[in-house]
Amino acid sequence: MRIHVVNPNTTQSMTDKIAAAAKAAALPTTHILATQPDMGPVSIEGYFDEAFSVPGLLQCIAAAETQGVAGHVIACFDDTGLDAARCLATTPVIGIGEAAFHAASLVAGTFSVVTTLSRSIPAIEHNLVRYGLASRCARVRASEVPVLSLDDPGSPARRLISDEIEKAKADDRAEAIVLGCAGMADLAAQLSEQHGLPVIDGVAVAVGLVEMLSRNGILTSKRGGYASPLPKTYAGIFAAFAPRHAGD
Amino acid sequence: MRIHVVNPNTTQSMTDKIAAAAKAAALPTTHILATQPDMGPVSIEGYFDEAFSVPGLLQCIAAAETQGVAGHVIACFDDTGLDAARCLATTPVIGIGEAAFHAASLVAGTFSVVTTLSRSIPAIEHNLVRYGLASRCARVRASEVPVLSLDDPGSPARRLISDEIEKAKADDRAEAIVLGCAGMADLAAQLSEQHGLPVIDGVAVAVGLVEMLSRNGILTSKRGGYASPLPKTYAGIFAAFAPRHAGD
Amino acid sequence: MRIHVVNPNTTQSMTDKIAAAAKAAALPTTHILATQPDMGPVSIEGYFDEAFSVPGLLQCIAAAETQGVAGHVIACFDDTGLDAARCLATTPVIGIGEAAFHAASLVAGTFSVVTTLSRSIPAIEHNLVRYGLASRCARVRASEVPVLSLDDPGSPARRLISDEIEKAKADDRAEAIVLGCAGMADLAAQLSEQHGLPVIDGVAVAVGLVEMLSRNGILTSKRGGYASPLPKTYAGIFAAFAPRHAGD
Amino acid sequence: MRIHVVNPNTTQSMTDKIAAAAKAAALPTTHILATQPDMGPVSIEGYFDEAFSVPGLLQCIAAAETQGVAGHVIACFDDTGLDAARCLATTPVIGIGEAAFHAASLVAGTFSVVTTLSRSIPAIEHNLVRYGLASRCARVRASEVPVLSLDDPGSPARRLISDEIEKAKADDRAEAIVLGCAGMADLAAQLSEQHGLPVIDGVAVAVGLVEMLSRNGILTSKRGGYASPLPKTYAGIFAAFAPRHAGD
Amino acid sequence: MRIHVVNPNTTQSMTDKIAAAAKAAALPTTHILATQPDMGPVSIEGYFDEAFSVPGLLQCIAAAETQGVAGHVIACFDDTGLDAARCLATTPVIGIGEAAFHAASLVAGTFSVVTTLSRSIPAIEHNLVRYGLASRCARVRASEVPVLSLDDPGSPARRLISDEIEKAKADDRAEAIVLGCAGMADLAAQLSEQHGLPVIDGVAVAVGLVEMLSRNGILTSKRGGYASPLPKTYAGIFAAFAPRHAGD
Amino acid sequence: MRIHVVNPNTTQSMTDKIAAAAKAAALPTTHILATQPDMGPVSIEGYFDEAFSVPGLLQCIAAAETQGVAGHVIACFDDTGLDAARCLATTPVIGIGEAAFHAASLVAGTFSVVTTLSRSIPAIEHNLVRYGLASRCARVRASEVPVLSLDDPGSPARRLISDEIEKAKADDRAEAIVLGCAGMADLAAQLSEQHGLPVIDGVAVAVGLVEMLSRNGILTSKRGGYASPLPKTYAGIFAAFAPRHAGD
Repeated sequence: MRIHVVNPNTTQSMTDKIAAAAKAAALPTTHILATQPDMGPVSIEGYFDEAFSVPGLLQCIAAAETQGVAGHVIACFDDTGLDAARCLATTPVIGIGEAAFHAASLVAGTFSVVTTLSRSIPAIEHNLVRYGLASRCARVRASEVPVLSLDDPGSPARRLISDEIEKAKADDRAEAIVLGCAGMADLAAQLSEQHGLPVIDGVAVAVGLVEMLSRNGILTSKRGGYASPLPKTYAGIFAAFAPRHAGD
Repeated sequence: MRIHVVNPNTTQSMTDKIAAAAKAAALPTTHILATQPDMGPVSIEGYFDEAFSVPGLLQCIAAAETQGVAGHVIACFDDTGLDAARCLATTPVIGIGEAAFHAASLVAGTFSVVTTLSRSIPAIEHNLVRYGLASRCARVRASEVPVLSLDDPGSPARRLISDEIEKAKADDRAEAIVLGCAGMADLAAQLSEQHGLPVIDGVAVAVGLVEMLSRNGILTSKRGGYASPLPKTYAGIFAAFAPRHAGD
Repeated sequence: MRIHVVNPNTTQSMTDKIAAAAKAAALPTTHILATQPDMGPVSIEGYFDEAFSVPGLLQCIAAAETQGVAGHVIACFDDTGLDAARCLATTPVIGIGEAAFHAASLVAGTFSVVTTLSRSIPAIEHNLVRYGLASRCARVRASEVPVLSLDDPGSPARRLISDEIEKAKADDRAEAIVLGCAGMADLAAQLSEQHGLPVIDGVAVAVGLVEMLSRNGILTSKRGGYASPLPKTYAGIFAAFAPRHAGD
Repeated sequence: MRIHVVNPNTTQSMTDKIAAAAKAAALPTTHILATQPDMGPVSIEGYFDEAFSVPGLLQCIAAAETQGVAGHVIACFDDTGLDAARCLATTPVIGIGEAAFHAASLVAGTFSVVTTLSRSIPAIEHNLVRYGLASRCARVRASEVPVLSLDDPGSPARRLISDEIEKAKADDRAEAIVLGCAGMADLAAQLSEQHGLPVIDGVAVAVGLVEMLSRNGILTSKRGGYASPLPKTYAGIFAAFAPRHAGD
Repeated sequence: MRIHVVNPNTTQSMTDKIAAAAKAAALPTTHILATQPDMGPVSIEGYFDEAFSVPGLLQCIAAAETQGVAGHVIACFDDTGLDAARCLATTPVIGIGEAAFHAASLVAGTFSVVTTLSRSIPAIEHNLVRYGLASRCARVRASEVPVLSLDDPGSPARRLISDEIEKAKADDRAEAIVLGCAGMADLAAQLSEQHGLPVIDGVAVAVGLVEMLSRNGILTSKRGGYASPLPKTYAGIFAAFAPRHAGD
Repeated sequence: MRIHVVNPNTTQSMTDKIAAAAKAAALPTTHILATQPDMGPVSIEGYFDEAFSVPGLLQCIAAAETQGVAGHVIACFDDTGLDAARCLATTPVIGIGEAAFHAASLVAGTFSVVTTLSRSIPAIEHNLVRYGLASRCARVRASEVPVLSLDDPGSPARRLISDEIEKAKADDRAEAIVLGCAGMADLAAQLSEQHGLPVIDGVAVAVGLVEMLSRNGILTSKRGGYASPLPKTYAGIFAAFAPRHAGD
C-alpha cells in the first residue's frame, strides 16, 4: 500500500527526517510518499504558523488522494489541519500527535509529553481534551528547543529533552513519554533505552495506525463533522481549492 | 473607539448584515470597521471551509491593526481563526461564538445552541469544551438551514429556527438560546419575544465585550499560547504573511 | 442607565472603594448606585459570613429594583447571593467573581486567582466548577491578607499579593491574574503593568458586562432556576421579605 | 447519643413528619432533637427561599450545639446552609441530599432523583457536581408537586412521583431512585417495593450517617473551607449571630 | 445483626487486625463474622494479586450469605472484587476504599489518600474516578510501606505514613486523610490526634455503612450491572462456583 | 511474529470464530496463537463471570509468554483481566474493547457501542471513563442478544444488532459503531456496508495494534501500575500461579 506522509512545514531536511522515520516504521510492502507544501512557514511554532500551513497541507492531501494512497499521516505534533484533511480525504488521516497519545495509552496508565517551545503547550493541551485523552496525560512539558534546532547537531536539544524526561519521571509519575515534535523522531529509541520507559514518536505509530486501519477497510466516517465539503465558490487565490460537485 | 468586525467569508451581503448588527449594538462613540477577506469561501460550513477562510481573515486583522482599532470581532460562529488572530493582534479579539456562550452563561443556568447544518455541530461542541462552557450548554441543534439561505427572504429559515427553539425548550430544559450563525443576527430580538427567553446573537454581544475590555485597558495576554508569532520565513504565496522582527 | 452596585458587607470604606472602581469603569452615561446592607458582617471571609450577608444584600437588590436600574453588580468575590438575587431581580445580576473569570477567559488561555484568606479558596473553587470555568483556572491562591487589611495603608497587602502573582507566573503557567476580592479593585492596573500580564478586577468588568447586557436588551431567563420566587409566607423577622403575588 | 434534625422551613407538620422519619431510622439509643427556625419561609422552593431559611437554620444549629448533640441533619433536600453550618458546628453536619446521593452510590451504579418543582432542579444539579456524584446521577426529575402538597392527603402527589419513577426506569436506565424532598420521607419504603429498586429517603440515611461518623469519632475538618468563623461584628438584626472569640 | 467482613488476602494476622477494627466500630448488637479465603495471595499489591484474590473472596461472600448476614465488607483498600460480590450477594456489599472516600467527603472538602506502595496508586485512582469522587481527592500518595510490614512492630511504617500526611497537609491542601490499606486500621485515631485533622480508616466506616443501609432496609439494586449472575456452566476448577438457577 | 489471542471464556466455537477474525486481520507474516482457558465460564455476561474468567486467562497469558509471542489480545469486550495481564506479560496486551474505542476515535468524532445484554453496559461505561474515551462515546446500547446466541444461525441476533445501529444513527448522532462483543466479529463488514458508516470489530483492530506496537518496539511500561508482580506466596489452588523471583 501507499501511505502519504505530509510534513506541513516547508523545510526539506525535516521532510527527509520524517520520511526516514516513516519508512523505518512501515511494512516492507508499504510505499511512503513524503511531501511538503510549497507555501507556508518553515516551522510551526504556535497558532499563527499553524494557520498558514493548512492550505498547503490540504493541497498535498488532495494531490496524494489522486494517487490512490491508503491513507495520510500529518507529521506535525499539533495535528495541524487534521479535521479539514479528514473532510477532504476518502481514506484515513492520522495526526502524529493523536497517534502518539493513543499508542501511549495502550502501554501505560499515564504519559507526559515533551515538546519544543512553551508557546506550543496550549494547542497540545486542547487536542488532548478534544481527543478525550487529557486524563491520560500527566503533563505537557516544553524543552524550550526551537523546532529547527532539532536538526542542528551542535545544539543541546537532545540533552534538554532528556532532562525534561527525567523531570517527568520524578515529578509527574509518568509511565511513558510522548515526544512532542516530528523533528524528534530519531531520538525515541535511544531515549527509551536510556530512561527505561516507553518513549513514543508519533511518526512511526501513525504510519502503523494507517496500515492497521487500511488493512481492515476502516475509512473515516462521512456522517457528521467529517462530511465531504459542500461544493461552493472560493474567492481569490484560493479559487482553485474550492470543493466541486462530485460530477464536476 | 474603532472596532474591527471581520466576516470571514467572502459574501458581501453577510458582511453588510453583520455590520448592521454590530452598529446597532455599538456605543454611539464606537466606529465599526466591517471587513471581509478577498480570498476564501463564500460561506463557512464545516472544517474545510474554515481552513481556507483563515489566511484572508488574518490579513484583515493585520490591516485593521494598522488603523488603531480597539479590538476585533470574528463574525463566524465557529470562532474561525480566533487563536491565530489573538497571536497576531495587540488588542483583544473576540469570536461571536464564545461571546454568545459567555453572555448566555451570565443570564441563564443552561442554554441550547441553534445553528445551521448538522455538519457544523462538532466544531461548535469542540469550542464549548475548550472554553470550559460545555457544561452550560444543554445541546447544540441544527436547523438544517444552509448559511446563505439566511439571506433569502423566501426560505423557511426563520420557521425552521423557531421550531428548533421550541424543541430546545421542551426537550433540553434550555433556559436561553444561542443563535449559531452570524447570519441569524437579525432574528434574535423577535425570537426572544416570541419564545419568552433570552435569544442571543453573538455579533452584538461580541461588540459589547470588546468595548468593555478596551475601556478597562485589558489586552490579550502575550504569555503562553497567544505569544506574538516568531519571525520566520513563509514560503510561496504566503511569503508576505510571514511574521517579522519587531524592528523590521 | 443606572447600575446598582451592592457591597454585601457593612463596611462603608469598602463600599466607597467599590463605588469608585465602578464609576471609573462605567460609561459616562451610566449612573452608579452604590449600596451596602444595614445588617450582616463587616467583611465576608468564609461560608458563615456569606450566609448572614445575603438577606441584607437581597434587601438592597429589591430596593434598587424599585428605582429602575438596568442591572446589579454583587461586589463580593464569592458571588454571594447571586442565585437568589437573580430570582428576585428582573434585570441582569452579575457577580464580580464570575465577571472576572469570564473576562480573563476572553484574553488568556488560563488564569490564576489571588484571593485573601485560604479559607475562601473552596468557595471560589466551587463557583469555578459551577460556572464551567474551572478548566480555565490554573490555581486559586491565597495571599493570607484579611479583607479589611486591604484598606490599611500600612499593611503589607500589596506586596503579599504581588508575591503571589509572581508564584502564579512561575509555578502555574498562568497567562492572566484575577484579583479575588472587591477590596483589591484599586490594585489591578498597577499590578498588570508591573507583572506584564492582564490583572483583572471584577468590579470594573462586572459593570461593563451589565452595560453590555442591558444595551442589548438581554435579561435573566425566568425559565428554570431563576424563576421569580413563589408567593408564600415568611415567618418572624423575615416576614417583610416574603415574595408576594404580582398583583399584591 | 443526641442527634439534631433541623427542618429549615417553618412548617410544623413537615418538622413532625421529618422527626418521625428520623426517629424510625435512628438507633434505639439515639435521641432525635427535631427543630425548625422561627424565621423564614414556610417551604423552600428555589434559591430565594433558601437564602431566607439559612439564618434561622444556623440559629437552630447553634442552639443544638449547646445541648451536646453528636451531630446535625439538615432536612432540606437542597442541603440548604450546609457549608455555613459546618463552619459553625464542632460535630458533623449532614444534608439529606448528600446523604441520599452517597447511599444510592453504595447500592447502585446510577440513580435518578425525583424532586418537587422543576425550579429546584438546578440547585440539586449544582450540589451533585460539587459533591462529585453528578456522574452517578442519570437525571434529576421534577414531579411538579409543590412541597406543601406532600402533606395534603387529597393531592395526586404520590401518583405523580410514582409516574416519574416509572419514567426514570424506562428512560434513564436508573438503578435506584433518590426522593428529592424531605416531605417524601414516608413514601420511600412503599415505592421501593412497588418499583422493585432501592428508593432512598435522605432523612433516614442522614441520621444513620451521623450515627456512623459520631460512633467512629470523626468530626468535620477545621482545615480549609470549614474553619470556624473569624470573630467579627455583624450589623443590625444579625448582631447577635456574630462569631465571637473562643474566650468570649 | 451479623456483618461479614472478608479480608481478601490469606494472612491470618491481617484478618485478626481487621476483625478487631470491625468489632471496635460495630454496634453492640452487631456480630462480626471475619473470614479470609483459603486460596490466593498473602497480600494484595497490584492488579495481579487482585485477580487471584477474587475467586476466594467470592467463595467467602457466598458462604456468608447462607448464614443470614445483613451485609458484607470487603477489607481491601482496592475494593477488590466489589462489583462481582454485589452481583452475588442479596445484601449490601461495601468496600473499605469507597467507604473511606464517602466518609471523608462528608466531613471535608478535599482529602488525600496515603497508601502502601506506589504500584497501588493507579488502581485507587481508577476507583476514585469510577465512584465520582476523584474531584474530592487532592492526591493519592504512597508511603512505600509493603502491606505485610504494617504488622511488623520494628518497621518504620508508622513514621513513613505520618511523614506522608505531613506532606499532604503542606502540599495538597488536604482537609482530611484516608488511610489506604486495611492494615493501617489501628493507626487512624492516633494519627488524627497528632495531625489535627480527620484520619479515616475504611474498615470502621464500612461496618457503619452496612449497619446504616441494613437498618434502613436498603439493598443493592438488581437492575443493571449488579443483576444476579445468569445460570451457566463454569469449567474446570471453578465448576462449583457456577451460578445456578434460583430453583436449583 | 506470533500474536497470542485469548478468548477468556471456555466456549470452543467462540475461540474458533475469534481465531478466524484474528487471522483474517493479521499480516501474512503473523502467526495467530488462539487459546482459551480450561477453567471458568462458558460466556462472560457481567462482573461475576468476569471474575472467574481471569485466573484461567492469566494462565493462558503466562503460557503464551513462554512461547515468545510479540503480544497478546484479550478477546472479550469487557477487556477482562487486562490490567493483571499487563503486569504479567513483558510484551503488549491489548483488549478488544479498548482497541475498538481507539480505532473508532481515529475515524469518527463520536461512536456508539452495540453490545449484548444491558447488564454488560456498566462495565463498558466504566472502561470508557478509565480509558478517557467516554467523551467520544455517544451511548452504549444493548441489543439484548445473549453472547452464545451469536453462534446460533437461527437467532434474530443480526437483525437486533442492525436495529440498534439504526437507533444509534437516528438518536445518538453516532458517526461510527463499535460492536460490543467478540462474538460479533463476523458481522462488522456487512453491517458497515449496510449502514454506511464504520462498524468496528475489536478483534481485528486489536491484532493490528499489537502488530504496530511490536514492530515499533513499544512495550508496556513497567513503571507504576503495570510493574511486574512482587514475588510472594499464593495459597490453595492458586499456589502455582504465585509470582516468583526473577531468578527462581
